[in-house]
Amino acid sequence: MHAEILSIGDELLIGQVVNTNASYIASQLDLIGVSVNRIIALGDDSSQIKSQLQDSLSKSDIVITTGGLGPTHDDITKKTIADFFQKKLVFDQQAYDKCKSRFRKRGISMPKSNASQAEVIEGSYVIQNNRGTAPGMILHDLESHPKKYVVVLPGVPYEMQEMMIAEVAPYFKSKSPTVFKHTMLMTTGIGESTLAEQIGDVGDFLEEGTSLAYLPQSAGVKLRLTSKGMDESDILHKHEKALKILTQKIGRYLYATSDMPLEACIGSILTRRKLKLAVAESCTGGLISHRLTNIPGSSHYFIEGIISYANESKIARLGVNPKTLEQHGAVSEQVALEMAKGCLERSDCDIAVSTTGVAGPGGGTERKPVGMICFAIATGPKLGKQTLVKTMNFTHERIRNKERFSETALHLIHELLTKSGNCKN
Amino acid sequence: MHAEILSIGDELLIGQVVNTNASYIASQLDLIGVSVNRIIALGDDSSQIKSQLQDSLSKSDIVITTGGLGPTHDDITKKTIADFFQKKLVFDQQAYDKCKSRFRKRGISMPKSNASQAEVIEGSYVIQNNRGTAPGMILHDLESHPKKYVVVLPGVPYEMQEMMIAEVAPYFKSKSPTVFKHTMLMTTGIGESTLAEQIGDVGDFLEEGTSLAYLPQSAGVKLRLTSKGMDESDILHKHEKALKILTQKIGRYLYATSDMPLEACIGSILTRRKLKLAVAESCTGGLISHRLTNIPGSSHYFIEGIISYANESKIARLGVNPKTLEQHGAVSEQVALEMAKGCLERSDCDIAVSTTGVAGPGGGTERKPVGMICFAIATGPKLGKQTLVKTMNFTHERIRNKERFSETALHLIHELLTKSGNCKN
Repeated sequence: MHAEILSIGDELLIGQVVNTNASYIASQLDLIGVSVNRIIALGDDSSQIKSQLQDSLSKSDIVITTGGLGPTHDDITKKTIADFFQKKLVFDQQAYDKCKSRFRKRGISMPKSNASQAEVIEGSYVIQNNRGTAPGMILHDLESHPKKYVVVLPGVPYEMQEMMIAEVAPYFKSKSPTVFKHTMLMTTGIGESTLAEQIGDVGDFLEEGTSLAYLPQSAGVKLRLTSKGMDESDILHKHEKALKILTQKIGRYLYATSDMPLEACIGSILTRRKLKLAVAESCTGGLISHRLTNIPGSSHYFIEGIISYANESKIARLGVNPKTLEQHGAVSEQVALEMAKGCLERSDCDIAVSTTGVAGPGGGTERKPVGMICFAIATGPKLGKQTLVKTMNFTHERIRNKERFSETALHLIHELLTKSGNCKN
Repeated sequence: MHAEILSIGDELLIGQVVNTNASYIASQLDLIGVSVNRIIALGDDSSQIKSQLQDSLSKSDIVITTGGLGPTHDDITKKTIADFFQKKLVFDQQAYDKCKSRFRKRGISMPKSNASQAEVIEGSYVIQNNRGTAPGMILHDLESHPKKYVVVLPGVPYEMQEMMIAEVAPYFKSKSPTVFKHTMLMTTGIGESTLAEQIGDVGDFLEEGTSLAYLPQSAGVKLRLTSKGMDESDILHKHEKALKILTQKIGRYLYATSDMPLEACIGSILTRRKLKLAVAESCTGGLISHRLTNIPGSSHYFIEGIISYANESKIARLGVNPKTLEQHGAVSEQVALEMAKGCLERSDCDIAVSTTGVAGPGGGTERKPVGMICFAIATGPKLGKQTLVKTMNFTHERIRNKERFSETALHLIHELLTKSGNCKN
């Protein structure tokens, strides 16, 4: 089956918003073997939406729209699609109750404008919104367009994503006989081109129907191994064979064979080994703590993060010696080490990591340029009272530097915790 | 003038790459008053490209393509466009020399495959590539499509951006007489639908040529006021008038009239008033500190963040009384207040904010459900030794709860710092 994605919203056409929704939907469809013909961003304009619908439905089996389901006057998608198919909007009690209870839970009475969000296109399959107020819809086999599908989703990424995973992908997956097997290979501590060299030409070892994709992401390199075909046992056999070869080739850079961030992998190791962690951050400014605490259950192993941005804080909170700061400067391996040691001791943890560096754009010098960072790790008796210090140089702007700094810190923790082998959950 | 952007590349259709090129081009065109009708991503397929060109040229004055200009076999854009207009590809000496010298500078001899990149469509205006090897082109007033423009750009963002700024934008700027004026209205502490009700029907006060768009984002609601027309002074007058009315209607929820995150606004207030800030985070896990330190120069006012995730950390680092924890539980206004007070005192700051709540998915009880959070703020003598405590309930999952929690904490800081009036930079 072929699909087109219509991303609706004036904000897309003036470049105010990057269309991440479309790439999310495309990647989800790709996983279930639905190929995307086109992705089209267009404005909140009913005649344009109608003419695009007409064109897209003539070229593809499925049209998925996002955006324009909000409660305000410029949200016209639902009404426009209903008009296009000459359908009415009808009240949906479940959507209304869901919306009302969302507001009630927060102790706010529902604004009048939200009531209109409980209206759906008659005859559609309603996808309830568990993360917001606008329901989604699937329209199928309409009089004017037999055998075609139109899926209407909200534009808020967080709401749309849940609907894609919970309802839309399973809905279309059941309609295709092709069997798919995917495995994510999560790596850390190695760049994309070095990894590609290490893996070599995939044509040499992948059998027909099996492919490998490099998926760029802000931290680490993610690979997806896909095997597809009509015979399930044959596919699983090929897939396992390819996975074994890839695992060997990637070696110690592979931390998991399921889609999980590095911080989740670290969390599961700490939980399994009953270890406690603390963090002393300067230039990463809280990002390491934020990433670690994004993982449900992190309160079992994450004790505290000390974001000692000012020198006085490094001295008072982590016991860094003022003389060390004076002699070597805040961005130095000596200070990083004292931060990690002080953090370990005062938090009574098993492992502590520290960061001090120049995130930029200001603050760089010739000897300590923007992008330079010192890391340290200190461990308690359970991990053999080790210390480790490392200096690295990155060349990005502030936010990207913080991301790379935090990724490297987590990579160093992971490497220390397990020199080889994957994350076992 | 109206434009369409055709982003060419299979990687876009499987969601491997997010189409940031299109939003960059759209934002550049918006600045010079060229409105984008549609943004279309399509695959490296010549018949699809030709049929899309035909359709887009029938609807718009300008078509801008990106991608498919590389030296490999799947880069077919240039050849396809030449075929479409029945033009030949001709050798361009300057492009050839530029490409050759790029390789020479890197000490590499130019691969044969790159020589084909020096070919351009006959009759086109050639945009030399100062950052890569593939030249861009502008085609105008072609026999089959008089008065239309086709701009062909490479897909590498860094190369394409330079061409947009240096050549494409100036080329079209001179051709459009329409004047545009945009203002961003940044709000916090109010939801989209409540804000929409407060503003009411924009038709009641916006004059012709002036419009208001609600731009969704993860934190706060962003509005864009746009005025356009042919007479600059008339437009500016209408714009100012509308801006004045909107400023009154939005009231204290408006924190800035230029595109900036709330943390940047808080930063500029703290800097101007020479105030120091510290943060004591439990359930937000470092996100408030991370957001505050994303702002360049935040080291001037952000002293430290104490991420006291464990109770022992709240006691040791912030001086929370163990009895308070025992009597009221970690998620309580009493503990939040002691956290903020302890943080203020120990960090020697002018303002401290604290968070303690249930981010989820676990840890909720009937009395303290997932999404419940207690905030406290304590200020020093410069801000009149105030304290403030607040409990709120959100209904999201973990990551989204952390985002909303941190946004509310920043909103409370902002509200305390300035009861009304915008962020003045």
